[in-house]
Amino acid sequence: MGKIICTGLGPGDPDLISVRSDRLIRAARHVAYFRKAGRPGQARRIVEGMLAADVTEYPMEYPVTTELPFGCPEYNQLLASFYDDWAERLADLAATHDIVVLCEGDPLFYGSFMHLQTRLQGRVEIEIVPGINGMTGCWNATGIPITWGDDVLSVLMGTLPEDDLLRHMQSADALVVMKTGRNLPKVRRALQRAGRLEDAWLVERGTMPGQRVTRLAETEIGDCPYFATILVHGQGRRPELEE
Amino acid sequence: MGKIICTGLGPGDPDLISVRSDRLIRAARHVAYFRKAGRPGQARRIVEGMLAADVTEYPMEYPVTTELPFGCPEYNQLLASFYDDWAERLADLAATHDIVVLCEGDPLFYGSFMHLQTRLQGRVEIEIVPGINGMTGCWNATGIPITWGDDVLSVLMGTLPEDDLLRHMQSADALVVMKTGRNLPKVRRALQRAGRLEDAWLVERGTMPGQRVTRLAETEIGDCPYFATILVHGQGRRPELEE
Repeated sequence: MGKIICTGLGPGDPDLISVRSDRLIRAARHVAYFRKAGRPGQARRIVEGMLAADVTEYPMEYPVTTELPFGCPEYNQLLASFYDDWAERLADLAATHDIVVLCEGDPLFYGSFMHLQTRLQGRVEIEIVPGINGMTGCWNATGIPITWGDDVLSVLMGTLPEDDLLRHMQSADALVVMKTGRNLPKVRRALQRAGRLEDAWLVERGTMPGQRVTRLAETEIGDCPYFATILVHGQGRRPELEE
Repeated sequence: MGKIICTGLGPGDPDLISVRSDRLIRAARHVAYFRKAGRPGQARRIVEGMLAADVTEYPMEYPVTTELPFGCPEYNQLLASFYDDWAERLADLAATHDIVVLCEGDPLFYGSFMHLQTRLQGRVEIEIVPGINGMTGCWNATGIPITWGDDVLSVLMGTLPEDDLLRHMQSADALVVMKTGRNLPKVRRALQRAGRLEDAWLVERGTMPGQRVTRLAETEIGDCPYFATILVHGQGRRPELEE
């Protein structure tokens, strides 16, 4: 009996993969990863040059990404069948082999692997190796601490309604907004209404080639990548400011 | 001219250190780390067996931890002098040597190194290597995804007033509460008032020897370690639940 090992890849720089995931990826004979149809895929790109020569690869291609409105029944049904199918295929394969599933960031933090995990639990042995999540890579790209002392950090998705975004932006000290992309104008309006636009940073491709860190207020919102992240750093308690 | 390299150590398991930090730590000739006076120190424990034979160690011992009420002027003054002194010593040393500063978790997420960084910026070259933060190690210890879909995650410190805790516990989907320790009874009351106690987990020593994962409602609150973390997992959108 084999098992399924999901390795967190971290934010993008292969040098930020954990020692454990690095070792597992290099030793793997069967490697699966998610990607958009017709694209090389971000997870696969991160491990370029690390895979064994005789590895067998299983690209798991999403049947839909942004073509259908998010949350519509057809979208949910397509995704559910996709995860069902791949859970079956991986379970079959795990009867005889170990399989490493690559997962960007940390697998249990807004990751796609979680949908396979719920379907495989109790049927196959699963091991998950944590990774540095994408937002950590992004605040490290700014070089500025995200939280101090008692700061409250809230992590928000750009897909939320504007008023929900506003409410959290007003009550938290430090902010991370993910899944921005086409939601960026809405996120920007919410930040402006919360009086926090001037303190917001936009990080594109954090820790990856082509990384770009800019102040959101000064940034042209043209073609913002879906995975661009917005940060507002906390300003909490620190001894030198309170004397 | 040397530089100061702060390496994130991750949540505790040395196997979860990044490839880059691992390499830097093993090659270091000068290593500094924070610890409580008279204790070996958690950061130092994580790298046990990794340091070079001829390494010079600089334990930076906090002048005060919980002996004085948090936030009182004396506490702030003692800590500020402590960080001032060590910033001077490290800057002097960096004139001729590279120094690796060990930092548990991720250095820019509620880390002590940030207080040195503010003092050294512009004087010394500083490089920071991200790490898997402690809360990521904790939710991986439960094996349950912390966030799905559009879930809002809020990270709270147990040192906050009960009503602030309550307000955030009511408005976020997923919760992480750090710095619990003596604040645990207050945190527990706030979770109860928010109707979320039954879904709360307590993780002690996540990813470390002696790791313990329990449901908070069923846990005796005796000697909860300061760095125990409370988690409430999000239950957000997932295809299989919406068909």
